[in-house]
Amino acid sequence: MAVPVEGLPSRVRIHEVGPRDGLQNEKAVLPVEVKAEFIERLAAAGLTTIEATSFVHPRWVPQLADAEELMPRLTALADAGVRLPVLVPNERGLDRALALGATEIAVFGSATESFAKANLNRTVDESLAMFAPVVARAKEAGLRVRGYLSMCFGDPWEGPVPVSRVAEVCHRLLGLGCDELSLGDTIGVATPGHVTALLDALVLGGTPVERVAVHFHDTYGQALANTLAALQRGVTTVDASAGGLGGCPYAKSATGNLATEDLVWMLTGLGIDTGVDLGRLTATSVWMAERLGRPSPSRTVRALSPHQEQES
Amino acid sequence: MAVPVEGLPSRVRIHEVGPRDGLQNEKAVLPVEVKAEFIERLAAAGLTTIEATSFVHPRWVPQLADAEELMPRLTALADAGVRLPVLVPNERGLDRALALGATEIAVFGSATESFAKANLNRTVDESLAMFAPVVARAKEAGLRVRGYLSMCFGDPWEGPVPVSRVAEVCHRLLGLGCDELSLGDTIGVATPGHVTALLDALVLGGTPVERVAVHFHDTYGQALANTLAALQRGVTTVDASAGGLGGCPYAKSATGNLATEDLVWMLTGLGIDTGVDLGRLTATSVWMAERLGRPSPSRTVRALSPHQEQES
Repeated sequence: MAVPVEGLPSRVRIHEVGPRDGLQNEKAVLPVEVKAEFIERLAAAGLTTIEATSFVHPRWVPQLADAEELMPRLTALADAGVRLPVLVPNERGLDRALALGATEIAVFGSATESFAKANLNRTVDESLAMFAPVVARAKEAGLRVRGYLSMCFGDPWEGPVPVSRVAEVCHRLLGLGCDELSLGDTIGVATPGHVTALLDALVLGGTPVERVAVHFHDTYGQALANTLAALQRGVTTVDASAGGLGGCPYAKSATGNLATEDLVWMLTGLGIDTGVDLGRLTATSVWMAERLGRPSPSRTVRALSPHQEQES
Repeated sequence: MAVPVEGLPSRVRIHEVGPRDGLQNEKAVLPVEVKAEFIERLAAAGLTTIEATSFVHPRWVPQLADAEELMPRLTALADAGVRLPVLVPNERGLDRALALGATEIAVFGSATESFAKANLNRTVDESLAMFAPVVARAKEAGLRVRGYLSMCFGDPWEGPVPVSRVAEVCHRLLGLGCDELSLGDTIGVATPGHVTALLDALVLGGTPVERVAVHFHDTYGQALANTLAALQRGVTTVDASAGGLGGCPYAKSATGNLATEDLVWMLTGLGIDTGVDLGRLTATSVWMAERLGRPSPSRTVRALSPHQEQES
């Protein structure tokens, strides 16, 4: 039953990260045909923005080493208007993405020095300096650019991350030319008041909320409550991963993304339009779970597909 | 990091249902010593209201057939001020509870005719008539009485349940003398707008929000977002089950209660006092998971106890 709440957006755009952020965190390396079919199925389920792959060096992300083979298989989707951003770490990655006709890229920074060092082997300043020509050249070429920011709430080395620190890095990313920011709760520790406080700080600092997306992990089960808090502050772009891909329910590091199905269930109940067909999406996640040889961690997928459970 | 939100309560009482609602939905039948130790550990972790057992006929709930053996083991806790409500279906159950010195009981009704028929083999009117003398006698004896109401949002046979229908049955339960109502989303389909609408209808109808508790299931991953919506409407009593007991992550019917740990994580982050020591609570749920032979479905328990995961 759809029961809208006053003050919430009437429409939310889901930025689907399963094929990129999801698959890069799965142990299995899937064949390129499976990845292409996955993206096609997600688009057929109504998702309009699907992060397709990554141009990070295959040494670091072997799961997505086949970007050159995958991208040409997606031209029909791109021609049909499906947005297919790709992750780009540096100018070499941008060259590869441009050569394949990408029209949207994402760069990924860190709000904390510890994670910048661990993930990028750079200081935050150095990483922003590395992104500057990437973003500039991408904008020149007419591409849309998203800036991911990791560790916006807590950091495994530094603990809670001050809102003012995150806001500062956000403003610098926007200053480089990023069209959109995605605020990542990389270790899943955020709670709704923290989300509200960060969004308020950003907006007070002059960032239009339309340019802010949220990217929550369900490590402590908080992702959907945090999403609700973000919607209440006017956020209209939410990252999610079909089937909760990227976090194994049986693994130590159950640090998965918010499952797209759980998000769609809530948004539909709130009368917020997503354009997504939940049945087709769930069927896609069950199909992908079979490819990966394990059930989806999404609660909605499990509830809607008891057959999957009997198999597992 | 605790980041409070204006307008939320400063303190929430968790009504722990693991030993009753959790264990009655587990396949395993545990020894009475384990149940007593479980309740003692929950109290030691700071939970102040722990639903201890059920006086439903053992034919229906064999997992809790040992109420007569369990209750005498809990007298020290009761003397120390821990509230230990017990579920009572009828006058025969009340007699048993009174004989054992219970000071709080709960009756359980249904908002829908279909579930009243399926669960109680009675119409809603007939079930309320059955509760009337139970509640009256309990109040006469100085007991506190909670009224559970199932299917407050959706019903597997009837679909969405009208808010006005739920409000009517709520008012009738209060009219019988119930001190508190617990609004159950038995099949886990509710979303935050529906929660808000139901609470608004109750308050408009004259029910003080202090007398309303919420009882969410995480079947579709919505429990914590729904809880946030309820807190925003002033609810200060939230039902939860330690470790998410009662819903197996690997079973078809993953209809588990909201995990107390996931709730405590959110409330702590919101600066809301619960009195619960999350470390001790998580250790208790890991201990119980070992007794049941399967890992806890709580995301917070899994995140905080990787050792459990390696075993599973």
